[in-house]
Amino acid sequence: MCLSGTLEEKMRAAAAAGFDGVEVFEPDLVVSPSSPEQLRELAAELGLSLDMYQPFRDGVEVAPEAFPDSLRRLRAKCELMNRLGTSVLLVCSNVATGVLEDDAAIAEQLRAAGDVADEYGIDLAYEALAWGAHVNTWRHAHRIVELADHPRVGTCLDSFHIFSRGDTVEGVEACDPRKIFFVQLADAPLLTQDVLSWSRHHRVFPGEGDFDLVDLLGRLHETGYAGPVSLEIFNDSFRQADVHRTAVDGLRSLRWLEDQTADAVREAGGDPDRPPLVLTDLPAPQAPRAWDFLELRTRELGHVTRMLHQLGFALAGHHRSKDQVQVWAQGPVRIIVSEDSRDSAQPTRLAALGVQVTDPDVAAYRAQRLLAQTVDRAQLPDETVLHGVVAPDGTEIFFGPTGDRGVPPWLVEFGADPREGAPESLFTGVDHVNLAQPWQHYDEAVLFLTSLLDLHPAPSQDVAGPSGLVRSQVMRSAGGVVRIPLNVAPMAAEQGAFTGAAYPEHIALACSDIVAVAQRARRRGLAFLPVPTNYYEDLVARFDLDPDFVALLESNGLLYDRDDAGEFLHFYTPTLGEVFVEVVERRNGYEGYGAPNAPVRLASQYREFARKG
Amino acid sequence: MCLSGTLEEKMRAAAAAGFDGVEVFEPDLVVSPSSPEQLRELAAELGLSLDMYQPFRDGVEVAPEAFPDSLRRLRAKCELMNRLGTSVLLVCSNVATGVLEDDAAIAEQLRAAGDVADEYGIDLAYEALAWGAHVNTWRHAHRIVELADHPRVGTCLDSFHIFSRGDTVEGVEACDPRKIFFVQLADAPLLTQDVLSWSRHHRVFPGEGDFDLVDLLGRLHETGYAGPVSLEIFNDSFRQADVHRTAVDGLRSLRWLEDQTADAVREAGGDPDRPPLVLTDLPAPQAPRAWDFLELRTRELGHVTRMLHQLGFALAGHHRSKDQVQVWAQGPVRIIVSEDSRDSAQPTRLAALGVQVTDPDVAAYRAQRLLAQTVDRAQLPDETVLHGVVAPDGTEIFFGPTGDRGVPPWLVEFGADPREGAPESLFTGVDHVNLAQPWQHYDEAVLFLTSLLDLHPAPSQDVAGPSGLVRSQVMRSAGGVVRIPLNVAPMAAEQGAFTGAAYPEHIALACSDIVAVAQRARRRGLAFLPVPTNYYEDLVARFDLDPDFVALLESNGLLYDRDDAGEFLHFYTPTLGEVFVEVVERRNGYEGYGAPNAPVRLASQYREFARKG
Repeated sequence: MCLSGTLEEKMRAAAAAGFDGVEVFEPDLVVSPSSPEQLRELAAELGLSLDMYQPFRDGVEVAPEAFPDSLRRLRAKCELMNRLGTSVLLVCSNVATGVLEDDAAIAEQLRAAGDVADEYGIDLAYEALAWGAHVNTWRHAHRIVELADHPRVGTCLDSFHIFSRGDTVEGVEACDPRKIFFVQLADAPLLTQDVLSWSRHHRVFPGEGDFDLVDLLGRLHETGYAGPVSLEIFNDSFRQADVHRTAVDGLRSLRWLEDQTADAVREAGGDPDRPPLVLTDLPAPQAPRAWDFLELRTRELGHVTRMLHQLGFALAGHHRSKDQVQVWAQGPVRIIVSEDSRDSAQPTRLAALGVQVTDPDVAAYRAQRLLAQTVDRAQLPDETVLHGVVAPDGTEIFFGPTGDRGVPPWLVEFGADPREGAPESLFTGVDHVNLAQPWQHYDEAVLFLTSLLDLHPAPSQDVAGPSGLVRSQVMRSAGGVVRIPLNVAPMAAEQGAFTGAAYPEHIALACSDIVAVAQRARRRGLAFLPVPTNYYEDLVARFDLDPDFVALLESNGLLYDRDDAGEFLHFYTPTLGEVFVEVVERRNGYEGYGAPNAPVRLASQYREFARKG
Repeated sequence: MCLSGTLEEKMRAAAAAGFDGVEVFEPDLVVSPSSPEQLRELAAELGLSLDMYQPFRDGVEVAPEAFPDSLRRLRAKCELMNRLGTSVLLVCSNVATGVLEDDAAIAEQLRAAGDVADEYGIDLAYEALAWGAHVNTWRHAHRIVELADHPRVGTCLDSFHIFSRGDTVEGVEACDPRKIFFVQLADAPLLTQDVLSWSRHHRVFPGEGDFDLVDLLGRLHETGYAGPVSLEIFNDSFRQADVHRTAVDGLRSLRWLEDQTADAVREAGGDPDRPPLVLTDLPAPQAPRAWDFLELRTRELGHVTRMLHQLGFALAGHHRSKDQVQVWAQGPVRIIVSEDSRDSAQPTRLAALGVQVTDPDVAAYRAQRLLAQTVDRAQLPDETVLHGVVAPDGTEIFFGPTGDRGVPPWLVEFGADPREGAPESLFTGVDHVNLAQPWQHYDEAVLFLTSLLDLHPAPSQDVAGPSGLVRSQVMRSAGGVVRIPLNVAPMAAEQGAFTGAAYPEHIALACSDIVAVAQRARRRGLAFLPVPTNYYEDLVARFDLDPDFVALLESNGLLYDRDDAGEFLHFYTPTLGEVFVEVVERRNGYEGYGAPNAPVRLASQYREFARKG
């Protein structure tokens, strides 16, 4: 149920992504035109094992008079499973009212069910649902399994049902691994809502939420458990997303989790190279050391280069083998501008990001093991190899070498002499880059950036715009060198021109003297995004600022924010196609992104878009 | 903040809908290019009062050393409000840590703030936020207001902050109405989640949620409160929806609430005709007595009429003045088929529903007072007047007379002789009609059907389909004569052909012998929507049914469900454009809609769509 589509489509996608096997969720089978025998055959063709059939509900913990019907239903399921070639059945703890509450009697029912299952060669994996009426903790379920003491009866551990109750996995390491029949993993963001809704709609893949799954997997490793580790994610977005990309996202999450767990095992002096860990040879992530470049693609070259020049950039050269590619530089900031053909339907956009890492080859290898799609990039034999991967939103991300004093070796391909260094400049670097995300791929994007680029999520926030709330999630490298706020735009946005797909992205450049940058830009004819007078009047009221300072801000079209540490001054350019530029100056260690001013920007862009029709 | 767009757009939409005034939310003003004086002028032009300015946060309950800055900020707001021409300021209870917790000292601060506000002729309305650190109940806030005892200091009552805590409004009726400065209304569905998220994302207009707002408004009426009653709804969908339709939805909700409250006041022997009730002369809703007709529009007439004939319908006649309109009948079921021009881009669709009411003119008058958009319908002087309104999803809904023995008078316009009555038939009526709803207008649709058609929501449920969850919300008339399940389809549905907009709707027809209907339809060449064999095998396992009975179901392509009362047999036709037909037989008072079988249908339709590409 992690995947959308039909059972056959799910199986094909899981196999294509590289999974070893799948669980069969009964409702998928019931609506399928393929017979159990045909599904078994399809699985064999695809090289997939069918590791579990589920669920068997209201089977045990029932009143004695209802138990014969449970066994009748169990026989029917076992017969079906024999046809399907599946040998583990998930038995859920009971959620009904008036269930059996005597552990010995429940164990007795499990034992009787085990006897029936044994006739079919089937194992029963008993799972405590978080909202089970009597049995709702893994320890309780496991105690009853031990009490049942039947070779066909074991425990199914499900991380969601454990962690959602605030429970721990302490003690898992002491379990007899032969009594753990199955392990289901799900992560989830920490939400304060009823656990049933949380479970049914908001589970995510490992690494996309807040649960400590490394702890669980580490303890399982300690037991010597060698059975399946599966993903069981109920998620409204996954149910709608393309099945192939979700399958890849899922396997990536398992590989990432294995890698994290292997690290933890190693740190504790253990040997990670045994089950349930399989892929433990991933190289450590190459954390970005610096931004390498940003790439804009456009069919309106004149508009883009005019804006870059207005901001103080100089043309640094044209690529020697790629006609349509030039680079503009200012201090440590390099912007590649690639020209689309005139008849391209694509708007001006932020097409690629480059980061510098210590070892690009290692970064590329790790990305490949984490199932990233690589960018097919043309290059001549004597040109720098740049490994690129495609992020979930379509942005290309390149791993480049750190180069000499941060100057990348590929600059020579533009006829620039790297020994010259960059001319003095007011710009100190790329401050952050905002990427718009389709809502249904948001969780995938978080894991992608975590696992490949070692970026980590800061607390997210909602920003109110005229056509809806924009969710903003900053992804940040450990030192803060690379910061990528992800923006999830309103989906409908009936009121306004920029909807989810066309939501503008932006590059924020850091400078040491924003007044000088603004004045130069204005002199060169840049029309800033307008800031209303009401905003400046409110600034005075809010912060008790010196009126002369506010007058300076207003006359230069600058916005202002401050936090406990310092101050933040910034301005925005108008939008070209789907991208605009922000220039920022941080004073005294301001940590934020000017979020209180984002509504001013959104409203101004909204009016700009409305004017253009 | 109920409305999307800019402040100027919000004001225009509120005025166009018919509101008397609006609150000004500071963040809207701050991002507006209009000066306070220009906004005051715009309001005057539009005939709108600006009834409140908000919010003033962290103003009181602060440490003594912070209070001078509060008063400085208060002066700045008062100056702005004087320019704007607004005389009531919302003062929120404090949510910070380390706030003042001495009621007398808080009252002292409110009094001092009242003195400052008095210099500007401004009233302060003090409101308890549900998550206020010290003051978080209306009674507490009101007690402090009484303690402050300042003519410029009163209470703001907000229904969300009261009911979300599980608190009651008992005692409101005993309040001095001169000490209630403002009333803000919001409804909300009962959700089990943290109150801050609930408040910021899930508020809805009165009548769209679960709060007892009639109780609050009734008690306010008892006090003689004559001030503004406002809507303060934070809702993710409203923020994205077209501002004009949301404004209309909002005013409709207030009129509906006034009407409900007036009824309650009358029942209690009171006189509803005084403030805050204004519109108390709405006629009672005309509950549907029966379905009148359903209307399909199509450019593929042959496909539609073939399917109707296969289901047993006969052509009853052609409209005498409308060339493209014919009616098909069977027993008490009448289906109008209107032909689109051949080059129409519109798919075959369910265009209109007709219900019979005791007095159609009264129903139409009520609809008009509830701001429904009327259908512009061509008719000749000697033809039956049918009043139609456009539902939020675009479906036209007509109010017709009950006619003689349920036979509508307009049938004669089709050359039918109403005295003949309908031929004997296996069909007993329209069972229900499923309408697809765009997610962002779902709440509006619920209130529309409640207030105009007197339908009421049953508990909603989610149905899993191959391209996402479908939310299903049955709206039902008191006697169950008219039942309209609303379906909110998945928004992205990357995996699959039918996305939100094209999600198919359907007509479910009730019959007394579904096997006979199915056999006739099959004989006439109807290809049923395929039902997999796995489904029938599961039926046996689930319900322990007689295999002969299941064989009968399977050979006739019928689906099956049962509840505590009875049984449900049904089948689906393939989809024509965006509409299909379901035929159902209810046995012994089955109450549901076959929801467990909906995934079978969705999967089958998904495969059908995929096959067609």
